[in-house]
Amino acid sequence: MSLSLYDVSIPTFLHSLRSLKAILEKAVAHAEARKFDANVFASMRLYPDMLPLARQIQIASDAAKGAAARLSGTEPPKFEDTETTMAELIARVNKTIDYLEGFKPQQFDGDDNRIITVKTPRTSLNFKAVDFVRHWALPNFFFHVTTTYALLRHGGVEIGKLDYLGPIPQT
Amino acid sequence: MSLSLYDVSIPTFLHSLRSLKAILEKAVAHAEARKFDANVFASMRLYPDMLPLARQIQIASDAAKGAAARLSGTEPPKFEDTETTMAELIARVNKTIDYLEGFKPQQFDGDDNRIITVKTPRTSLNFKAVDFVRHWALPNFFFHVTTTYALLRHGGVEIGKLDYLGPIPQT
Repeated sequence: MSLSLYDVSIPTFLHSLRSLKAILEKAVAHAEARKFDANVFASMRLYPDMLPLARQIQIASDAAKGAAARLSGTEPPKFEDTETTMAELIARVNKTIDYLEGFKPQQFDGDDNRIITVKTPRTSLNFKAVDFVRHWALPNFFFHVTTTYALLRHGGVEIGKLDYLGPIPQT
Repeated sequence: MSLSLYDVSIPTFLHSLRSLKAILEKAVAHAEARKFDANVFASMRLYPDMLPLARQIQIASDAAKGAAARLSGTEPPKFEDTETTMAELIARVNKTIDYLEGFKPQQFDGDDNRIITVKTPRTSLNFKAVDFVRHWALPNFFFHVTTTYALLRHGGVEIGKLDYLGPIPQT
């Protein structure tokens, strides 16, 4: 058997975004139980010059949707990055899940070594598609999901690694 | 073209472990420049009931070597988890890199849906091999690498996302 670029990207994003959504919902419940405003979490940072939780989620969303668009040769939808509340951030995760669910595996077919270009503010990067997935898209995505988890743990939310990993299909 | 389980696991681990090593070396240089003991980092935690940096690195190492062993049907070497200094932790990363470099892609061939069993202290999990890679091994690995990064950022080490991503091959 063999795997496609779809197999090793979209199911991973979807699985992890669903875990992220559940984690954000736990953070909201945590705040409600303690009668403080859950939206305080949205602007929390792990360190003064690190990005706040809202940006972590926006970038995780962008990493997933940008990868899906680039690998399928389509244009990603523009999300405006205006979320400031937990409800809006959960909606952002949902919107990303809906977008990813719209892809079919065959849209990702093609040469695994085809060139994927990523434009950053300073430069333009050209990766082989397989390197783009394993060395850019996935590490970036997990970086921001894990940092969100770390921020919420640091903020006292009672979550554990199993919340991060989510319910993995068993045989 | 198509990807193998090797393609989407071992190169990812190797690339990221090399970045992790460089990050740890930057942390040591940071401490030396400020004349404090770099080994203080090894016992730092992001939150009182989170694991210290040394354990983050040991578990990242275990996630990578455990995945390589399980996917190739071999026994992983036992690393004793006795590291307490930064030099020992860097050596642990190096040892993990050396171990992973010893695998050949064909050792990972076989049905992508074959069963991979993971025994945890409380239970035994049975995954399809592809789910083991994308929903267990990679998320676990990145979780502990990113938490190491976050810990060092929180400890004032001047590193950025590009240190985490490492130098990705360009075409």
